[in-house]
Amino acid sequence: MNLKEQALKLHKENHGKLEIKSKVRIKNLQDLSLAYTPGVAYACKEIEQDKDLAYEYTSKANMVAVITDGSAVLGLGNIGPYAAIPVMEGKSILLKELAGIDSIPLCLDTQDTEEIIKTCKYLAPTLGAINLEDISAPRCVTIERRLIEELDIPVFHDDQHGTSIIVAAAFLNIERFTKKKLSEMRVVLSGTGAAGSMVAKMLKKIGVKEINAYNITGVVDKAKYDSYDFLIKELIDQNIFDTPKNHDNTLASIMKGADAFVGVSAANLVTKEMVKSMNKNPIIFAMANPTPEISYNDAKEAGAYIVGSGRSDFPNQINNVLAFPGIFKGALKVRASKINEEMKLAASYAIANIIADDELSCDYIVPSAFDKRVVPSVMEAVAEAAIKTNVAKIKNI
Amino acid sequence: MNLKEQALKLHKENHGKLEIKSKVRIKNLQDLSLAYTPGVAYACKEIEQDKDLAYEYTSKANMVAVITDGSAVLGLGNIGPYAAIPVMEGKSILLKELAGIDSIPLCLDTQDTEEIIKTCKYLAPTLGAINLEDISAPRCVTIERRLIEELDIPVFHDDQHGTSIIVAAAFLNIERFTKKKLSEMRVVLSGTGAAGSMVAKMLKKIGVKEINAYNITGVVDKAKYDSYDFLIKELIDQNIFDTPKNHDNTLASIMKGADAFVGVSAANLVTKEMVKSMNKNPIIFAMANPTPEISYNDAKEAGAYIVGSGRSDFPNQINNVLAFPGIFKGALKVRASKINEEMKLAASYAIANIIADDELSCDYIVPSAFDKRVVPSVMEAVAEAAIKTNVAKIKNI
Repeated sequence: MNLKEQALKLHKENHGKLEIKSKVRIKNLQDLSLAYTPGVAYACKEIEQDKDLAYEYTSKANMVAVITDGSAVLGLGNIGPYAAIPVMEGKSILLKELAGIDSIPLCLDTQDTEEIIKTCKYLAPTLGAINLEDISAPRCVTIERRLIEELDIPVFHDDQHGTSIIVAAAFLNIERFTKKKLSEMRVVLSGTGAAGSMVAKMLKKIGVKEINAYNITGVVDKAKYDSYDFLIKELIDQNIFDTPKNHDNTLASIMKGADAFVGVSAANLVTKEMVKSMNKNPIIFAMANPTPEISYNDAKEAGAYIVGSGRSDFPNQINNVLAFPGIFKGALKVRASKINEEMKLAASYAIANIIADDELSCDYIVPSAFDKRVVPSVMEAVAEAAIKTNVAKIKNI
Repeated sequence: MNLKEQALKLHKENHGKLEIKSKVRIKNLQDLSLAYTPGVAYACKEIEQDKDLAYEYTSKANMVAVITDGSAVLGLGNIGPYAAIPVMEGKSILLKELAGIDSIPLCLDTQDTEEIIKTCKYLAPTLGAINLEDISAPRCVTIERRLIEELDIPVFHDDQHGTSIIVAAAFLNIERFTKKKLSEMRVVLSGTGAAGSMVAKMLKKIGVKEINAYNITGVVDKAKYDSYDFLIKELIDQNIFDTPKNHDNTLASIMKGADAFVGVSAANLVTKEMVKSMNKNPIIFAMANPTPEISYNDAKEAGAYIVGSGRSDFPNQINNVLAFPGIFKGALKVRASKINEEMKLAASYAIANIIADDELSCDYIVPSAFDKRVVPSVMEAVAEAAIKTNVAKIKNI
């Protein structure tokens, strides 16, 4: 069987990928009287007095909803809420299998920004956290920001932050391994959507000197400011995106002399010639899925020193499972009210530091997606950062 | 430990009553590539072509959301969405434990009728059915009706229908046992909220001659038509509620000569004298919780022939677990688009017929809540009724 047949079989024979399990047995009237009426009323009354007790008497503390509107699912585009269910179920079971977090997929039959925000707010009482997923940019940024502001549970849009946290971890390790300072690096970023924007933010945060961005309209240039959406404008305003000195609006023109290329854009955008035109020992993270901006082999042949991608069949896979399970687990552990920048940065450092100095190599810059040390390390680092930045309700771990 | 201590311990030590379980293992990149990217995209693409395939490739077919706004929780009143969680979790695990149905509790942070309707519609893609729960009357009727009309998955408000289906089953067995014809019975109903209204409808449907209703404003009388909410008006219009010939607006005045009393109202409303004033061999179903309108012992002492209540420590318990697990299972089994009157009636007959003619007795009019024959019988009857009335997508069982 090929991948398609195997994947369809797995989904069909299991009738989906998740089920609900009762933690208590209901075999007789005595069981019923404790878990349901009349006994359950005592738990209700306790929570009525103090709603935080929902964390003690219900499944809320460990319950994450994976919420999408199906507007930007994987590389498939706007396939709607029904077709999005298998991806959300996949995310839910990853949270369970990798971090022990209970999680329910909820695919919303609306793509209206305000309606999505309202619905998430209505759903909050039963939830410990919300994982937004596969919502198109720049709406996803608006939705996440509003929910972070208006809810007291963590809200995290993995498409924005997951990749950026792991790319930042990779660059921390590149600095450690190559001794080349981030503060001297110019990075070319291809793709300025949800993921690209946050990659740029995180790279600047860890010290990268200059970021030149490129998207479907060409090179991002302050001169074209008025033509951009609010997100790109904001990144220009905050000096996250730097306008390159010389360019002819092509990707090739800004690749010349660059130290690194980071792609979250589209297949085959980068040629060997472009890689050859970069500064010496160039770094390439080509993460377009499933076909990268340039293949590992082509990049290597053109002289790239370190190459990473989204693919599991080549070295240095930037796989979101390195980040989100530990991040949610850390945030839930200390009942953080949000996942802030410090917590994301702490996750990057935790992921980077899984690999000891003497283990680092060109092909081992990021840990493997199934390295058992990752989730607990990220969890601890994120929980500590939450406590330090005063967003945690529980003050010790 | 008393009931309160035991119930709180059970809720606290388990951190709530339900968890999510993955049906597939994710131990390595091969597992990941089938259950998540890239393999999951094949399931997405199939569903994109035909959204009904969500029933094949996802958990939708067996997934019920238990949705409340916390406005009328048990007998506790409007305790809000946080304090309602333990009850909804209880309902969810009953669906799982008794009928193998996966179910998630969702307690909404809004009590606005239109917002609840919209939210349920937005949530529908991931769900096989919706169980509305503990929403105050008469809003609950509006919400359920609109959702039944506007969604293509079953929506069922158990507080309205659960009790009515089982009370109807009880009356079917009373006719069978006592040989007294339903078509000659006058029933007094105390309580005209969600449950009471539907009890009246079902009793009329199975043939009861006359129903005189009583509520907090006194005896329901066509003369006071304008003072009633839309639900009571409707039941008067449909000749479900009959105006009694002689009454002084007291419950006592309409109990005189009645064949049966059905209470879904409040504690201790019925005295021994009232029971004594009824027709001979009176029937009493006093279902106010936790204290009935009249106790089993008092009713018996006053001459009642058959007595039922909501209590598990006395005979003839009207317990909703007799109905909703099998009803949802039957509706899901044939992918019914709704749960219609015929399906509810089929459930009543199935519950009634669990008890053979020669097993029936005054104290054994309804089956026990944990009789293993109930769920499969109700499921089959409901599924057959769905097929017969053309609301089933699957045409054979």
